[in-house]
Amino acid sequence: MTRAILTINAGSSSVKFSAYALPEDVPEAEPAEIGHGQVSGLGGGGVPARFEAFEPGPDGPVGVADDSLPAGAGNHRAALSAILDWLPGHVHGAQVVAIGHRVVHGGRDFAAPLLLDPAAIDRLRALVPLAPLHQPHNLAAVDAVAALYPALPQVACFDTAFHRSQPERSRLFALPYAWFEAGIERYGFHGLSYEFVAGRLPELLGREKTGRVVVAHLGNGASLCGMVDGVSQATSMGFTALDGLPMGSRCGQIDPGVLLYLMDAEGFDSRRLSDLLYRESGLKGLSGGISDMRALLADGGTGARRAVGYYVERVARGVAEMAAAIGGIDALVFTAGIGAHAAPVRAAVLQRLAFLGFRLDPATNDGHGPRLTLPGDGPSAWAIDTDEECMIARHTRDVVAGNAGRGN
Amino acid sequence: MTRAILTINAGSSSVKFSAYALPEDVPEAEPAEIGHGQVSGLGGGGVPARFEAFEPGPDGPVGVADDSLPAGAGNHRAALSAILDWLPGHVHGAQVVAIGHRVVHGGRDFAAPLLLDPAAIDRLRALVPLAPLHQPHNLAAVDAVAALYPALPQVACFDTAFHRSQPERSRLFALPYAWFEAGIERYGFHGLSYEFVAGRLPELLGREKTGRVVVAHLGNGASLCGMVDGVSQATSMGFTALDGLPMGSRCGQIDPGVLLYLMDAEGFDSRRLSDLLYRESGLKGLSGGISDMRALLADGGTGARRAVGYYVERVARGVAEMAAAIGGIDALVFTAGIGAHAAPVRAAVLQRLAFLGFRLDPATNDGHGPRLTLPGDGPSAWAIDTDEECMIARHTRDVVAGNAGRGN
Repeated sequence: MTRAILTINAGSSSVKFSAYALPEDVPEAEPAEIGHGQVSGLGGGGVPARFEAFEPGPDGPVGVADDSLPAGAGNHRAALSAILDWLPGHVHGAQVVAIGHRVVHGGRDFAAPLLLDPAAIDRLRALVPLAPLHQPHNLAAVDAVAALYPALPQVACFDTAFHRSQPERSRLFALPYAWFEAGIERYGFHGLSYEFVAGRLPELLGREKTGRVVVAHLGNGASLCGMVDGVSQATSMGFTALDGLPMGSRCGQIDPGVLLYLMDAEGFDSRRLSDLLYRESGLKGLSGGISDMRALLADGGTGARRAVGYYVERVARGVAEMAAAIGGIDALVFTAGIGAHAAPVRAAVLQRLAFLGFRLDPATNDGHGPRLTLPGDGPSAWAIDTDEECMIARHTRDVVAGNAGRGN
Repeated sequence: MTRAILTINAGSSSVKFSAYALPEDVPEAEPAEIGHGQVSGLGGGGVPARFEAFEPGPDGPVGVADDSLPAGAGNHRAALSAILDWLPGHVHGAQVVAIGHRVVHGGRDFAAPLLLDPAAIDRLRALVPLAPLHQPHNLAAVDAVAALYPALPQVACFDTAFHRSQPERSRLFALPYAWFEAGIERYGFHGLSYEFVAGRLPELLGREKTGRVVVAHLGNGASLCGMVDGVSQATSMGFTALDGLPMGSRCGQIDPGVLLYLMDAEGFDSRRLSDLLYRESGLKGLSGGISDMRALLADGGTGARRAVGYYVERVARGVAEMAAAIGGIDALVFTAGIGAHAAPVRAAVLQRLAFLGFRLDPATNDGHGPRLTLPGDGPSAWAIDTDEECMIARHTRDVVAGNAGRGN
């Protein structure tokens, strides 16, 4: 029997999971992935929800399950039940000893992962208004596990926690200070990804103190983080996941006056604004329908070039802005889907940032690094994969072992 | 009789004017200011409007008029009438031969000053929805002059015109492209100030091609412009005068999700949002009521330090962002009230930007420059006054002489 940690990332229509094995006698050993998958199509009307699972193989993940859930079982509880029932029998006889949840918002109080009990869950539920599109689904999964397996330890790992180290000047908006006191601040997100990357910096940069580093998490969501010695000092996402860089279908930075105009001149209410800015904007809006960077780079038409050009412009500007926030830049790390894999985007960004001393190495950039720049005195640039699930598994391991806060 | 040009800057509650003398025989001579003043308290309920005028003196402006207007004369027409009646008898016997108006919005069509006729005025009126707080007042002054002195040539000088040179990637928001085609773009403002500064760059920098220059217009309104050889390539203000840097009472850059939150969780409508973001935010909001930078620097309390610290943070970040937009930075020019006169703000910004090569000269910075940096290989920084009225006078001179587009 393998002691396993299950990580859960629950959204409105799907629950993604990964299972990690914990060696019995080595409490600090790196969790090893033993399987992953998802239940998709939740709340999908007449269509049954779908369960898929994969095991790691020598040539990549191998599908080991692809089933429909029973009719009527399209909710988070049914999804968690399906995952927890299926896992022990199929993945190396895994026995789940703890569950780690990705929870988008930890508010101001939680700068570290949290062992969940009813009081803690209530405190996280109070944060729903800060992240209405994500937090309720994250907590629905927590509730489902608590109902199904009340004794199973659950740990919440927050997208916001890594940024609690930001100085106040990075957290403020220029609003009346009472709104800051009431909780309107630049929380920042993608914290589990940044924490994973921060943990790899000493190895990449070959030094213990890693200096002034900007990390560009460029996935379907996208943001920047300026860190000093691995500690977040500033980030481009603000109060919500709309701000900062343009994303697949999200607008990123926009003049607030545009929203006022759409309300006054076009009669938009908050629902229409939200649909526009979250779902119809970003790369999708600029290109005329394509939100995926691979598709945009392959397309090459006017709309696709416009979208990619804007994206590069805002990433390059954003990196320079982050450098100013941390007093300069010793290294730039690209990560997540676009960051780790879209060589033309990285090349264009680094060329725009030549004035900061970056000297692109086209060969290593085309090979996806890890190092993207020529040797020399200037700052270096890197491309690496991120792994938010691994970060959740490590935190969950540490919290249930009573070693919370030891980090990675 | 002195041929004079009158410049008009009409707002909701005041009309500011300046008068410039035009030498009879030298069409390209620099207009020389011969007086300025304002009518204030327009639309002020029971309080009579007030007329003030000043003439240049060896030790600064000398007050030469300070009167109340007749009761009931608190509108733009009465204000223009008072100015045009008063001027010829009191300022060197000036005869006004043309009027130049500051008009906030020229939309997409106008990249240069415009001689106004009824058709042109209609086209500017169609832009009112893009600048509802300013454009109607600008045009009310135009209408007043047209009614009072139909034969007097009037020229509109636009805050947006200087930025029509921006490439599309600087003008876009990441919205569906149809909204860009419908006119939602980053127009940018403070164009008359940037144009004035651009005209001074060859003299400051000692070269004809002035390279990559960021200009920080830091007044009660504030924005940044990235120019190459004096031509605008990018600017921090967007569709309205709310975006970009924090200002006296305006928020500057803010997560659009904050607006959605205030609508959904707090019941704000566009009117309350507009009041909050235009009138209660910025330095005033952060400090707890103080919007004036001199007062903030003199105060030094917690709220004042918070506001100034945030301001410096965003200006420094913004300059770095603009540098990325124009591929680097050869010079930084501070202008407008704060830019030309707040040495501690400039010093803090330049220290934050030391990584770009700026080497602050504390002595010349304390003396307000013009040069603020030590000699060396790095970029230089400067502080100069701007003069939007002079720019309007020059444009008006050129347009009525049939030399529009000759520039400064």
